[in-house]
Amino acid sequence: MAFLLLSYPERGAVWRRVFHEAGEDLWVGTDEVRDAAAVTHLACWQPPDLSAYPSLRVLLSVGAGVDHMPPLPPGVALVRTVAPGIDRMVRDWVVMATLMLHRDMPTYLEGARQGRWQQHPVRLAASRRVGILGLGRIGRLAAETLAGLGFEVAGWSRSGTPLPGIETHGAAGLDAFLARTDILICLLPLTGSTRGLLNAGLFAKLPRGAHLVHAGRGAQLDMAALSDALDAGRLASAMLDVTDPEPLPADHPAWADPRIVITPHVAANTDPEEGARHALAVLSAWRAGRPLPGLVDPEAGY
Amino acid sequence: MAFLLLSYPERGAVWRRVFHEAGEDLWVGTDEVRDAAAVTHLACWQPPDLSAYPSLRVLLSVGAGVDHMPPLPPGVALVRTVAPGIDRMVRDWVVMATLMLHRDMPTYLEGARQGRWQQHPVRLAASRRVGILGLGRIGRLAAETLAGLGFEVAGWSRSGTPLPGIETHGAAGLDAFLARTDILICLLPLTGSTRGLLNAGLFAKLPRGAHLVHAGRGAQLDMAALSDALDAGRLASAMLDVTDPEPLPADHPAWADPRIVITPHVAANTDPEEGARHALAVLSAWRAGRPLPGLVDPEAGY
Repeated sequence: MAFLLLSYPERGAVWRRVFHEAGEDLWVGTDEVRDAAAVTHLACWQPPDLSAYPSLRVLLSVGAGVDHMPPLPPGVALVRTVAPGIDRMVRDWVVMATLMLHRDMPTYLEGARQGRWQQHPVRLAASRRVGILGLGRIGRLAAETLAGLGFEVAGWSRSGTPLPGIETHGAAGLDAFLARTDILICLLPLTGSTRGLLNAGLFAKLPRGAHLVHAGRGAQLDMAALSDALDAGRLASAMLDVTDPEPLPADHPAWADPRIVITPHVAANTDPEEGARHALAVLSAWRAGRPLPGLVDPEAGY
Repeated sequence: MAFLLLSYPERGAVWRRVFHEAGEDLWVGTDEVRDAAAVTHLACWQPPDLSAYPSLRVLLSVGAGVDHMPPLPPGVALVRTVAPGIDRMVRDWVVMATLMLHRDMPTYLEGARQGRWQQHPVRLAASRRVGILGLGRIGRLAAETLAGLGFEVAGWSRSGTPLPGIETHGAAGLDAFLARTDILICLLPLTGSTRGLLNAGLFAKLPRGAHLVHAGRGAQLDMAALSDALDAGRLASAMLDVTDPEPLPADHPAWADPRIVITPHVAANTDPEEGARHALAVLSAWRAGRPLPGLVDPEAGY
């Protein structure tokens, strides 16, 4: 067996050290591949042509997402990186974005561009209903922190599995969940059933003047429908870390829309050290025949 | 005795209802003053000529600050509004501002203005040292929330009274506190000793590339020194809810500085209902000879 990492040099250097400290071999980059047929484990973001690695058993995404990965042959497990750092970084971005929309930052940023000192009433977090689409590790962490700030938090997940201390809705409860949500936060993975989910029909089910925080995937959002919903007053403002397409072209109208604040897909990046440790945990579980941490269910897509 | 409120009509209507429900009389506005010599309690933001009220015993600021109040004759107590809503609102603004500087929002906002999709490395909150100037109710609440997000939090207060779970510095420890602070948060009241505190000398004691979050009072900040410190790279960015002067004139260069984000003194406003209830608590304590909630120490100025 052999473990191959395809990534940029900085990550490669950290992984090499962490693997070395654990007494494990690691090939970094195609130059170090002495025998492609020996590669059983491959970690990367953008996958290479996998037919070059006929013995592959585990494909590991060095990020939290796997929606960019190709369909895998039977017997190859797909694993996403699970690291506390990723969860916390996305949580921090989501809390920041939620507070920014709650506290009218798009309006104040536009006022500042015009040198306008104009105050608007301040609302308590307790008067704002936040709704989180997606209650995985990150969604649950965000729910906990936002509830701690006093927001009235509910969550939606496909399964609707109840969570302690938070109003939870399942697949059939989506409309009721949207109807009670002033600030909608999307943290869903990209799958066949979430692609294009954030569209005109969904926006119409939110209370008038609602806000959108999007940290899922760009392909879940209909950017034209977002613009229409803002024009119609259906939505008041939005904060996007993901867009469709990515990168967003310089002449895209969303950049100049004062009701939209965009960050360029930076809610999180994987700390190389955490990622390397997760890779070692995957390797160790694989050898022992235990469930791989971060294993993706091919049917669910996450 | 009589209780007089001088404020805008919306606040007057709420106070009138809350006082009425408590069986208390309230005069709202000078029109309702039947006998100025009967006024023992006066609540207002901008104080009138106090010589018109010779029997005054308590002057109550309807906000959290009292730095705009004139010196009072002996025997007149100065009280500031203490309300959980104010504390939480300022905490929320401070957490938002700290996250915005931590997550490079000034850079991303400037990038968005230019339609530029450019990513910068993401840091964990745990790698950022936050320092809070002022450990009153709001400072303690902010410290707790920011520590909960993983920031390394220390606080400074004149007294240096230790707080559980947070590194606390006193008057003599200011330089050491500044030397370990990546994001400096000012929540100090405006007094003789805090006026002009945020100046070139103080900025020079921060690590190079530090950030400033200012939710104290405008007169504590030397805006020209801030601009110089940003130009010199001494500071990287700043988020200001208070400025000098206020309102900031439309042609002030700070509005257009991409390293500075300004909100127009909106970290909190006093909920009229909470304010009225605090006023009733002051009245009740005064009648019973108990310490007045929110009583200001004239020597300390807060």
